[in-house]
This record gives sequence, C-alpha cells and structure tokens, in this order.
Amino acid sequence: MSVLVVGSVALDTVETPFGKRKDILGGSAMYFSVAASYFSDVKLVGVVGEDFPERGVEILKRHNVDITGLQEEPGKTFRWGGKYHTDINHRDTLFTDLNVFEKFSPKIPNSYKNAEFLFLANIHPALQLEVLSQVDKPDLIVTDTMNLWIDTTLGDLKKVIQKTDILLLSDSEVRQLMDEPNLVKAGRALLKTGPKYVIIKKGEHGAMLLNADNVFFAPGFPLEDIKDPTGAGDVFAGGFVGYLHQSGAITEKTLRQAVIYGSTLASYACEDFSLDRLDKLTLDDINGRFKVFRDLTAFEV
Amino acid sequence: MSVLVVGSVALDTVETPFGKRKDILGGSAMYFSVAASYFSDVKLVGVVGEDFPERGVEILKRHNVDITGLQEEPGKTFRWGGKYHTDINHRDTLFTDLNVFEKFSPKIPNSYKNAEFLFLANIHPALQLEVLSQVDKPDLIVTDTMNLWIDTTLGDLKKVIQKTDILLLSDSEVRQLMDEPNLVKAGRALLKTGPKYVIIKKGEHGAMLLNADNVFFAPGFPLEDIKDPTGAGDVFAGGFVGYLHQSGAITEKTLRQAVIYGSTLASYACEDFSLDRLDKLTLDDINGRFKVFRDLTAFEV
Repeated sequence: MSVLVVGSVALDTVETPFGKRKDILGGSAMYFSVAASYFSDVKLVGVVGEDFPERGVEILKRHNVDITGLQEEPGKTFRWGGKYHTDINHRDTLFTDLNVFEKFSPKIPNSYKNAEFLFLANIHPALQLEVLSQVDKPDLIVTDTMNLWIDTTLGDLKKVIQKTDILLLSDSEVRQLMDEPNLVKAGRALLKTGPKYVIIKKGEHGAMLLNADNVFFAPGFPLEDIKDPTGAGDVFAGGFVGYLHQSGAITEKTLRQAVIYGSTLASYACEDFSLDRLDKLTLDDINGRFKVFRDLTAFEV
Repeated sequence: MSVLVVGSVALDTVETPFGKRKDILGGSAMYFSVAASYFSDVKLVGVVGEDFPERGVEILKRHNVDITGLQEEPGKTFRWGGKYHTDINHRDTLFTDLNVFEKFSPKIPNSYKNAEFLFLANIHPALQLEVLSQVDKPDLIVTDTMNLWIDTTLGDLKKVIQKTDILLLSDSEVRQLMDEPNLVKAGRALLKTGPKYVIIKKGEHGAMLLNADNVFFAPGFPLEDIKDPTGAGDVFAGGFVGYLHQSGAITEKTLRQAVIYGSTLASYACEDFSLDRLDKLTLDDINGRFKVFRDLTAFEV
C-alpha cells in the first residue's frame, strides 16, 4: 500500500532575495517523498554519490520513506545551482553538475513492485520508459516533465505521455508541447494523446485540473514572503499523489481535494529553504491551510 | 439612483487571430456602460467627433444609458488600432489618434451630480481630478488606471488614488507602482495610500480582490475561443460596479459576488468583437455563467 517515486536526489546551491545556501538537500524525488509522506507510505528510487550527507538519509527515514531503491554510486551527488530574481517567479540556472545522475539507470527493487501509485518525476523520458517496463501495472501513473524534453526528446516523451494517467506540466510547457497558446484548448488536445487528466501548473497563479468534461482552478496561496520556491512543483506532486492514494478513490471530488492538498504543501515548502519547513509540518498545519484555501475562492450564489 | 462613468468613446480597428474589424465601437466608457446597464442606471460622460456613427448612440440608448453628458465636438472621434498575437494575451498598439479626445475636458451635467457611484475609467489623472472636483461626495469612487500614467503623471495619479475607494489595476501595474514584485505585498502597500480595496486584474489568470484582512481570487473563465479581448477590463469594471450598486450594500459578500459578475460579463465580451456579444446578453445568460464560476473553484472540505 504505497506510492513509488523515481527521480533525482540533489544538493542545491540556491540564492534568493532572502539569502544564500550551499549544498542543501533537494531533487525532485526528495521533495516529492517528504511531501507525500504526510499521507502515504513512500518508496524512493534514485541515486546519490559517496558524498551524500547523512542528514539526507535521516530526513527520509524520519518520514518513513523506504530507501531500499536509493542507490549509492562512486562519485559525487547531482548538484544544481540557481539564483532567483527580485521577482521570485523568475530564476537563472547557474550550473547543473549531473555527476552520478549522468549514468543513472533506475532499478525497481522487487519489494517495490506492488506499489499502487507511481510518480515519474522529471527525469529523461527514456528513463521514465525504463521504469514503466519494470513495474506491474500500477493503479495510477502520474508523470512530470519539463521543456528540455519537449525540445530534445519529444518521441520518447510522447510514449511516456501515452501511458500516463495524470500529466503535470507548466503553462508554458503545455503551450509549447501542443503549439497552442490557449491553455484550455492545449490541455484538451493533450488529453487526446493519453492522459485522463492534465494538471497545468501556473506558478504564482496556482494550478488548473482539466479533463474532457471539467475544469478546476486552485489559486496560488497568497504568501507575502517566499523564501525559496525550489521544488514547489515536486512538493505539489507529493501532496497531490500522496493524498489521492490515502483517499482510496480517484474521483472528481478527491482529485480536486488532492490539488488543494498539493497546493497547501507547496505553499508551506516555499516558506523556507530546502526541506526545512516541509520537514516540520503537522497534520493540523496542513488541514488548517487546506481550509484557508476554501475561503480564498468562496462566494455566495 | 445611478452609476456615473467618465471615460473614452472610441472607434477601434482590431485584428485578432479570428479576424479584422475597422472602426468598431469601443472605448472604456462605452464598454463599461453597456456592461453596467445589466444591473443599474448608467450616466455617461465622454466626447465624440462629428463622425461618430448613429449605431453608437443607438446601442447606448438601447441599454438606457443616459447620454446627456456625451459631448460632440468638431473633428474626428478618438481612434485606436491594435493587433493581437496568436497568444491573444499579448497585443501591439498600431496607432492611437486622440482627435477630439486630445482636448477633452469632462463636464458633469447637473442632472448627474446625485449619482451614488462614480467610475473613473482610464483617462489622464488630471482629468480624473477634474471630475472629482465636480461631483458631490459619491458613496463609492472606483478608479481604473494604466502604466502610462505611472510613468508620466505619478503625482496626479497618487492624488486620485488617495481619493479612491476601490482601485483597479493590472498585476504588472501594481508591481510597477509599488516597486514590489510580490502581488499581495504590493496590493497591501497600495491599500495604505488611500483605497479600501484593490482589485488586481491578471488577464487569463483572473482577478484578485484585496483589503487589509482578506484575499479573494476569481479565476479566469476557461474560454477556448477568445475572439477579441479589447475592453475586457472595462467590461469587468462595468459588471463589478453595476452589480455592487444594484446590491445596495458594500460588504465582503457583495464585493466577492461583484467580482464574479464582472468576470462573467468580461468573459462574454471576449466571445465576439466590439460590443457584439455584450449587447445581446440576457439575465439568464449572466446568472447561468455566474453559477458556472462557482463550480470552477469548488471543492469539499
């Protein structure tokens, strides 16, 4: 009874208007796992180098994340560096040192193969296909991607999308992928290529959940101080997939709630660097903000 | 018992991916008046040239808009030309011929002076101040503005804002005006300079209503085909101010409903060129879409 995630584990160097941090814990699988752990058991597949700090393992263990599938390889851990602008919705990537991630070949342990939900974090589509070839048919496959793969690996990406139940991507990515500027039109066109649902992430403007019949909008939480938005998309995915798994049903009702739980966790994650805020949440924190989200869009008919 | 609007009346030449139209009815006061007319009596102040077509007067009369204050001056009517990109959220202004609007000096007829609500559409802040000096204290002053005045006439603009109850501006305008990229922070800072409420218009991402204590988000309506977004902001204002006036109370409840009525009318207006769709709405159309808006953000707690 668990959620399987395959993605990156990284050490990030991040500068925002609120400060600078070197070699802090990051990576899509890391952010996803801790977020999803508030709702479900999580099994992680990823790779780290010999220099991966003990605190990285400790935080995963503290959140009961199964790290049987976390490989350690000779060399250094994947590192990413970025600097956010004064307008924190924009950032520049300063460096990307793939290190051990360059030759990452995901291996799904036998003990993972019964995971009901699979989250394919944003890694090379060829690796996502490798993962899909190793799992028994999961009940739900949720996939994340990025503009780089639309530019460079469109063929493999389309194969992944065809096998995906719920696809997550940003507004600019869905426009680029479908060559259609209208988000609803682009999303509806994308639905014809495989996924049952598409979630369009709009950064500060929130997220849109779309299927053939319905549209649901979640607002961005009105945070006045965003210390570090790194990983917010992966945290959103973790809250979304984790809650959906815990709910025991995949319906319009639970999907909408899951989008709000994802938004809730993502908003908390932005309040501090790395996993610092995410690590210390309580279920009261989470359910409290979930209810605040209700009031943000409520009006009387 | 009416709403007074002072703004532009124009003939627009508009090109969008859906077609091209020459000398179609436009202008902020025109769009506002027709939208607000679905809820309240409207009194218009503006200026046209000798070439203003009879169909322009007819549509205002059809919507019971009082045009005692519509001056006709020697010369041509204000003309604006714009071309929208394939991504219809972006446009280029091709020309702006002020014509009779260049020497416009708003005169408020005596019969208008008891209007309870005043909408200052986006005109030169010095003209907005002229209007304010001519009216008895209205119950509510709602003001629109644009980046041009932030760049060129900041002193007068600040005087107008100081006297304004509800200020409407776009996300880029509030960021520029307050030199603060965070929308909530920028909006809250703006509230300290006069207005009781700020409405931040976010185009396709909807609108945000903000006061010192509350935040309310209205989503953008998921239109698949936007034929012509010209005037959407003025139509939003018309629906917002018109409904608020009709409701008879200015509370958090009616303000939120008014934002949704404004969004409803703006979404209809985008479905055709000029005032073509707006002209033909029924209250059933309006109330039907108002309820659809409810479902767009609804989730169970």
